[in-house]
Amino acid sequence: MVAGKELKKMSEPIDFYFDFSSPYGFIAAMQIERVAARANRTVRWRPFLLGAVFKKVGQSPLEHDLKREYINKLDVFRSARMRGLVIKTPRGWPEHSIPPARIFYWIEPRDPAEAARYAHAAYTAYWIDGNSTADADIAVDVAARLGLDRAQAAAAIQAPAIKQRLVEENEAVIARGVFGSPFIFVDGEPFWGSDRLDQVAIRLEKGSV
Amino acid sequence: MVAGKELKKMSEPIDFYFDFSSPYGFIAAMQIERVAARANRTVRWRPFLLGAVFKKVGQSPLEHDLKREYINKLDVFRSARMRGLVIKTPRGWPEHSIPPARIFYWIEPRDPAEAARYAHAAYTAYWIDGNSTADADIAVDVAARLGLDRAQAAAAIQAPAIKQRLVEENEAVIARGVFGSPFIFVDGEPFWGSDRLDQVAIRLEKGSV
Repeated sequence: MVAGKELKKMSEPIDFYFDFSSPYGFIAAMQIERVAARANRTVRWRPFLLGAVFKKVGQSPLEHDLKREYINKLDVFRSARMRGLVIKTPRGWPEHSIPPARIFYWIEPRDPAEAARYAHAAYTAYWIDGNSTADADIAVDVAARLGLDRAQAAAAIQAPAIKQRLVEENEAVIARGVFGSPFIFVDGEPFWGSDRLDQVAIRLEKGSV
Repeated sequence: MVAGKELKKMSEPIDFYFDFSSPYGFIAAMQIERVAARANRTVRWRPFLLGAVFKKVGQSPLEHDLKREYINKLDVFRSARMRGLVIKTPRGWPEHSIPPARIFYWIEPRDPAEAARYAHAAYTAYWIDGNSTADADIAVDVAARLGLDRAQAAAAIQAPAIKQRLVEENEAVIARGVFGSPFIFVDGEPFWGSDRLDQVAIRLEKGSV
């Protein structure tokens, strides 16, 4: 009985919460599948809107100019290069990322793996190619390049049911105590930041950090 | 001429800014000498008071309960264990760390290496043994265990010249754009956080991250 429960627990997916406009979300997104696969886990991708969270907790983590400048001009680029990634800041950044988040939740109910591929491709379009996260055409283009229907993808961005799904995901994220991007849960234990993936890997391998 | 300048630059110490009440300062302090020594560098230890900085920039980085709880109950302990350190939160924490900072600047003018040993021993007294950072007796005990004069160490905490030195160090820290602990400069390039020591090591080895 216990063994069965343990076995079930060991196979539970990692929850990966992220905003497409988050550079550290991007850095983590490029690695999370590898980290999970090494422990025979899958990843449950969960885009959300950081703006909704910051509104709830009262503020952004970039609460003053010194820190904002350090993060945006130095740390993001260095942290990316440490992982072999050359970041190009999205045009117009920081902007919301509603179009890709809604397209993700249009794909996800029928094919979570396809939605994960979409997330990966969208992140690349934003943080490697430097496109605007708020641009609906870009988000649709990414879907089209994956072979998805362009008109349906565009319609999904305006579909009431999908709008509502994203609202509910944001509410769920807040209810779970997520306050930044990326935010990763392994069997319920939270890890915040792309710089905690080494701890996530140890948590997966050994059961505790 | 250029070669001479380069040689001089390569031998410049790393500036290591920290508050004795900062757990990530402690985690970095236990490693920074090793990281520097591998690159044939020395460390210029510079304690300061985070409270003075937060007053200047307007707030603490632990700006809301969710983040404070995550940092103080999970991340600090996990990050320490990743480095083989079992942290004991100082009694009364968070408190100011005026006594050890002043004793440090009493020792430092005549013997920077001794001051660094004091910093290491004081951090151990706070974050391994769990003593109060605001307790003058504890800060004096640490000095006495290093063979320093107990009465002189106690007097240093109240000495106007040393009080003034710490005020000036805090002002210098703010002028340099430091906004957290630890804060490390390698040839003028800033790195914030114990979790950036891997980047500091690469900066030292290769000249850039």
